[in-house]
Order: sequence, then C-alpha cells, then structure tokens
Amino acid sequence: MPSRTQAIHFAHQNQTRFLDEMKDLLSIPSISTDPERIPDIQQAAEWLMAELKKRQCTNIQLMQTPKHPIVFAELNCGDASRPTVLVYGHYDVQPADPLELWQSAPFSPEIRGEHIFARGASDMKGQIIACLKAIESIQAAGEFPVNLKFLFEGEEEIGSPNLEPFIRSHVELLKSDMALNPDSGMIAADIPTVVYGLRGLAYFEIRLRGQATDLHSGLWGGVVENPANVLASLIAGMKDADHRVTLPGFYDRVRPLAEKEKVEMSRLPMDEAYYLQSTGALALAGEKGYSWVELASTRPTLDVNGLYSGFTGEGSKTVIPCYAMAKVSMRLVPDQDPEEIRQSLVKYIEAHIPATMTYEVVVHAGNPASFTDLNTPGVKALEAALATVYGKQPVFKREGGSIPVVLHMKRLLGAESILTGFGLPDDNLHAPNEHLNLPNWFRGIDTLIHFFYNLVK
Amino acid sequence: MPSRTQAIHFAHQNQTRFLDEMKDLLSIPSISTDPERIPDIQQAAEWLMAELKKRQCTNIQLMQTPKHPIVFAELNCGDASRPTVLVYGHYDVQPADPLELWQSAPFSPEIRGEHIFARGASDMKGQIIACLKAIESIQAAGEFPVNLKFLFEGEEEIGSPNLEPFIRSHVELLKSDMALNPDSGMIAADIPTVVYGLRGLAYFEIRLRGQATDLHSGLWGGVVENPANVLASLIAGMKDADHRVTLPGFYDRVRPLAEKEKVEMSRLPMDEAYYLQSTGALALAGEKGYSWVELASTRPTLDVNGLYSGFTGEGSKTVIPCYAMAKVSMRLVPDQDPEEIRQSLVKYIEAHIPATMTYEVVVHAGNPASFTDLNTPGVKALEAALATVYGKQPVFKREGGSIPVVLHMKRLLGAESILTGFGLPDDNLHAPNEHLNLPNWFRGIDTLIHFFYNLVK
Repeated sequence: MPSRTQAIHFAHQNQTRFLDEMKDLLSIPSISTDPERIPDIQQAAEWLMAELKKRQCTNIQLMQTPKHPIVFAELNCGDASRPTVLVYGHYDVQPADPLELWQSAPFSPEIRGEHIFARGASDMKGQIIACLKAIESIQAAGEFPVNLKFLFEGEEEIGSPNLEPFIRSHVELLKSDMALNPDSGMIAADIPTVVYGLRGLAYFEIRLRGQATDLHSGLWGGVVENPANVLASLIAGMKDADHRVTLPGFYDRVRPLAEKEKVEMSRLPMDEAYYLQSTGALALAGEKGYSWVELASTRPTLDVNGLYSGFTGEGSKTVIPCYAMAKVSMRLVPDQDPEEIRQSLVKYIEAHIPATMTYEVVVHAGNPASFTDLNTPGVKALEAALATVYGKQPVFKREGGSIPVVLHMKRLLGAESILTGFGLPDDNLHAPNEHLNLPNWFRGIDTLIHFFYNLVK
Repeated sequence: MPSRTQAIHFAHQNQTRFLDEMKDLLSIPSISTDPERIPDIQQAAEWLMAELKKRQCTNIQLMQTPKHPIVFAELNCGDASRPTVLVYGHYDVQPADPLELWQSAPFSPEIRGEHIFARGASDMKGQIIACLKAIESIQAAGEFPVNLKFLFEGEEEIGSPNLEPFIRSHVELLKSDMALNPDSGMIAADIPTVVYGLRGLAYFEIRLRGQATDLHSGLWGGVVENPANVLASLIAGMKDADHRVTLPGFYDRVRPLAEKEKVEMSRLPMDEAYYLQSTGALALAGEKGYSWVELASTRPTLDVNGLYSGFTGEGSKTVIPCYAMAKVSMRLVPDQDPEEIRQSLVKYIEAHIPATMTYEVVVHAGNPASFTDLNTPGVKALEAALATVYGKQPVFKREGGSIPVVLHMKRLLGAESILTGFGLPDDNLHAPNEHLNLPNWFRGIDTLIHFFYNLVK
C-alpha cells in the first residue's frame, strides 16, 4: 500500500482520538485581548509545543514578544532540496461574550449533531489541529515528504501587533518556499475552495473637536457648531447615492477585474439569497454595476465601524458635545495604497471641515490587498488535493477580509501563502455558538495529507 | 432701621454660613437620571424639607411621583390679601461624567478664586439656596411680606416627566398669583437681567437597526448597508449648508421677531466676541440673516446630543455595526408645536431611510416655547430689585433654553413665571467643572430680599 493511502487510512482510523485532542486545545480559554487570560495563552502555547514534540520537531521554541509568545518549530525531512513549508496558525481566540447567548459553555467543547461547538473551533484551533493530524498521519505512514517550519502566534485576534516585527527580525529562521495558512474557509461543505486574493484594510479614527467643553444646547444652540453634526456630514459625504466612495482619487488605482476572473466569479454559488441568509440583512445594498460576489471581494468599501459623541446613556442630556469620533475603515483592492488612501481622506476632510472644528486622523491599520499567484506549486498541490478528496475541481475565489500575515510573509520572506481552511460561512466566527462542521474537518485532514504529498509529486 | 435694611444687613453678616449650607446641599449627588442615585435624590429632598421647617413653613410634604418626589411647603404671612408666590426649584442635577475632566470632585464643593465648583452649583442648587437665604434674612428682620408656596422637583434634568401631571392634579394646592423661578441666569456679572422668553424643546432618540448582529466588515463589506453610515446621512440631511433645518414644515409656524424686540435685542451686549468667549468656540456658525443673539434665543435649532454605534473602545474592531443611535433635539420658538415637529422628523426619516434598515423614534421631551408678560407686578418687582442692587436698569432678554415648568404654571395655574437667577454664561452648566460666581450669588440674595419686599410696596 503506498504511504499516501496508508496515511489516509491512519487518519480515518484515528478520527475519534483526533477529535479528543482538538477538544483539549479548545478547552483552554486563550483569549488574547483579556489580560486575565495570560496564563491560558501560555498554556495553549505549551500544549502546541508538546504536540510539536510528539511530531518529532526540532528547534522547538517559545519565543517571547512584547505581548503573547510565538511558538516556533522545525521538521526536517532530511533532504534540503525538498521545499520548505511554513505552517502558520494562531492559537488565540476572540472573547466569548455575550456568554448568555451560548447554548453550551464556550470552553467546554460539545458535539451536537455534525458540529463541535466551542470558541476557536473554526477560528482557528480546529484548523491547526487538522494540520497537525495530517502531519501525524503522514508520519505514521513513513517519511515526511517536505521540510516544515511552524509559526503559531497568540495575537491574531488583537491585530497581530508583534508579528511583523517578529518576522522582520527572524527572516533567516523563518525562510521558506511557501506558507500554508489554514485560516481561510470554504464557501460550502460541498464546494472545495482555493482563496487567492484578500482585500487590504485602511482603518482610521477621525476625531473632531469643537468647543473646549460640552455646552448647554439651550443656551448656545444656534450660534455654535456641533461636532457630531459636522461628523455626520463628513461621513455622509464620503459616499454618493450609488454607494461609491467620493474621497478624491479613491478608485484611481483600482485594477479592473479581469474578464476571466469575472467569469470564474459568476460561477460561484453566492447569489443574493446566499448573502441575505449569511448576513441576516433585510436587503442588500452596494455599488452599482457589480455582482454581489464581486462587491464582497473585489471592490473597495468604506464603512463606519464605530461612532461616539456626547451623551449616550439612558434618557436625555441637552448638550452640544465638544467632541465626536468615528472609526472609519476601507477595504482595499489591488492596487490601492493605504498611505494614498490616508492622504485622500485627509484631503477630503480638509476640503469640507468648517473653521469651527479641529480634527485628527489616527491610523489604526494600513495594509494593501494581497494576491497569490495561481501558478505556484503550492496552489497546484492544494488544487489537486481538494479535487481528490471532494471529487470535484475547487473554485477559486477572492476573500473580502484581510490577513495581514499573508502580506508580511510575501514582503519579508518572499513566501507566497497557500490559503485554505475547512470552516464554513455560518460557523459563527467572532460570535456566540462558534462551531465547526466535523465531516468537513475530517475531509480537511485528508486534503492536507494529499497537499503535502502533492508538493513533491 | 427699616426691616428691609435689617434683612440686607443680616444677609451680609451671614454669608459664610450661607455658603456652608450651600456646600451641604451640593455634596449630595442627586443625579436624577441615575437609578443608583435614588437614595441621594431622597436625601436632597429631605435636606430641603428640614430647611423649610427652619423657615417655619407649614404643610411641608414629600409628595411621591412615579419617579422622584416633589417637596411642597407653605409660608403664610397671615394676610390672605397679600400675593402668593410659588417658589419653584429643582434639587436634581445633571450627571457629572466625564469625571476625569473635573479639577475637583463634582460632589466635593471647592472654592477656587471667586467661584465655588460643584455639579449643581449654578444649575440650580445655588439658586434655591439664594431664595431660602433671602427668605431667612427677611424673617430675621421681621414679618414676611407675602405668602409663599414651594415646589421643588427632582426630575428637571430628565425632562420633568411627572411634573405636569402633578401640577394638573394639585391645582388647588399650588394656586398662586405668580411663580418665582430662579433657574435662569444673567448675561454678565455687571448686567442685571430679566428673562421673558424661553425656547421649547423637542428631544428624540433615533435608533436604526440593520442586520441582526454585528458583521465582519471584511467578509460582508460591500454588500450590506451600514446603519452608522445611514444614520450619518440622515443627520447630515437634516440641515442645509446655510444651517437651516430641512425637516418638512419645520419653520412653518415660526413667529417672526417683532421689530421692537429686534431693537431691544440689538442693544444687548452679546456680540460675536461675547459668544466666542462664553462658548470657547473657534468660530461661530449659525443660520444666515440673523444676529448672534437672535440666533441663540429666538430661532429654532437642531443639534445632535449623542451618537453611538459599533466599537468605540481603544484601537480597532472591524465590524459593520448592526445598530446605530443618535439623540437629536430641537430648540423650539413660538409657535412651533413639539408634536408637529415629531411628525415632521418621522416624515423625513420615512422619506430617506433605505429598505435595508428599520428605525424607531423615541420621544424624550416635547415642550413648546414660553413667554412672560412684562407688565405683571412680579416682573416690575424684580426689575426694581435688580436696579437697586446692581445700580443700573436690567436688560430684558429671551433665553435659548427651555423651562417646561414655566409653561405648565401658566397653562395649569394661570401663574406667570418671574424668571431670574444669578448664574453666568460661563458657569459650565451640564459640563465638567460647573461653578458659580460667589460675589454675584451674594448680590442675588440681596436682589431676592428686595424682590419680596417690592411685591407689597
């Protein structure tokens, strides 16, 4: 029996144990934003190190950062001419609140029907375990076909503040031919998916200040300008009635969608009904002239993420606020440049802000969009693996979200990321009752087994 | 020595004690909007009852309402043919947040320079104490010249929800010839002021709901509408570039300013420099075609008092919020009707809200503007008292704020309100570091002593 077949057989024989091991990791509340969870972050990192030791890794290190540690390890196949794959993952999770909306406790994994419910099941502890169990299955069948490096961070859910500096200062250690990033997902359980594009993100906080203090709206209403009203006008003017962003030059660098991409996109089963169901929206709304799937992944956006001014408690307070704040972010597409977008926003504000106000624009994030070349061996290996396991050709899609690490790996290590993952759109990421579809997760392990073998085919 | 002179002498001799008694009342955090402060509301009411007992009042009652109690009392001079004055006050205060902007704790009164700093010092515990100490001074000098009734409410800062029903159901008890309401203020420490007009208030909370939950702005940005963006557009559209309110029919009932009032107003020392200094604004802004003082008191306004949506903490969170809220209020002038304004707002929202959103408009306040007849004996008595104490004729002005009780007293009791008060425009009402000018407060006590005597001159 060829080792590939043996490995798949091993994976199938050990599904129950694999599941138990996933439960172990899911039971650790490694919430990265919560200072009280630092011991749990540490425990999750140590859990992974112990697992990497079982995988016969070398050079296993818990590498400190100013916040949460990074787990590093290597697995050498003994042939340096074989490709090296950098396996990326994050072992931290989102907060679980509001707790009262969970049907079972977020850190007491529970299987109901075909799903396992726990914070981090889909995003992304389950995906990390899928990789590790695929590796274990291959090891059980013989030699590992390629070289591996592992980088598991504990800060993804808080924006990975220390990841870029870490990669920058460990370029030699991390040097790889490609990265495997299973933090993406599938369109549906029967649609194997290869993600080749991600939107970028430019995230700003706009702060307006009017008078030095809040003022009584009766005494002074009519003669002083209100920063909350001005902020509303500024935001309103950032888009026109056709949902197009009006910031000067915003679309100048947007690369038109290739005809081939348009055709491929039109084949995706993501129609109006899909988006309505996935979002719970009463109706969809978007820029004219594009299909919904094009809008969600290939067009730039502008959204208010947060608004604050004046009195927001119960009842009424008759103030003219002295201050108003909006968090406004844009999803970017090739070839928009975050710094140019910032300049455009500032130019827009300068042109429209009245003399009654001062303003400040704080940059919270600025990452361009990223693209994976579909002709790299890694993409080909994944494409073939998915076709084998799911019995059909995968679809190629661009994602609307941003994964900054993809960008860092490309820029700093020259490594193209292979984006995969076996979560589904209704997994309740970042929400109560996060879950993972188990039959798809088992297929995911099989897929990753084939992927590693395919790299040296 | 005539008793008037004795009373003034007594007041001057007892200034330090009067100040200490004001501090006692200011130390009670009677914030009416905060359910945790109910015991403090009760304590402030009891403090006043004890003080009224010392003033030899009869029929002192703590009268319950569905929310905070009303303190009632009577003081009979023994001559029913003398006028009866209903002294109105509110013993509740605004919330003190943001606490970090206070230089001294809001409920630990502190004297710095000529001012006492505390929440409620100017609005309006200090004004209540001025009345009570004027009364005490007159009592120390002899018989009280008129009959008094007292109505101190604890809900003014939350829009007096129970005051109108209370007055309506206690018309006989409250029946008076006039009301004394010291909840107004002066233009400057050297400009004695009689206020004869008040703007009304229509206060709304607009709530927009989009999707059922917050959504990931990367995954769904571009296809779902954002309630925060929509809210910004709605607010922006409520005013045009000339600062005119665009709600349908908003100005239809606005009574044009009489030529005589325009002339009187033009004599007020309230120019651009005055408003700039009083408000701390970088520049003023208002409806075209009116002077600043006209804008601040005789024209209707529309202001956002609070804004909330999505993520407002430190840093960034890439959500499309499911909910956005604005508190929006209008100052009304004769003869605008609050209910018509509500209908106009709803009509405007209905016309502009997209199919992606549901909305709700909650009414927090709805009071028309009010006017006092300048020829009543009460106004004449106040005019003379101010002239005596300040050595100059007072100016007559309309106020930008709203005092709904003035309206209720007129409508339900037939009692014209005499509006006075010894706060100044830069007292930081409703804002951090609220304070009261003490030399002017002492002159206020003198003025009220003269006022009561003048009523029977």
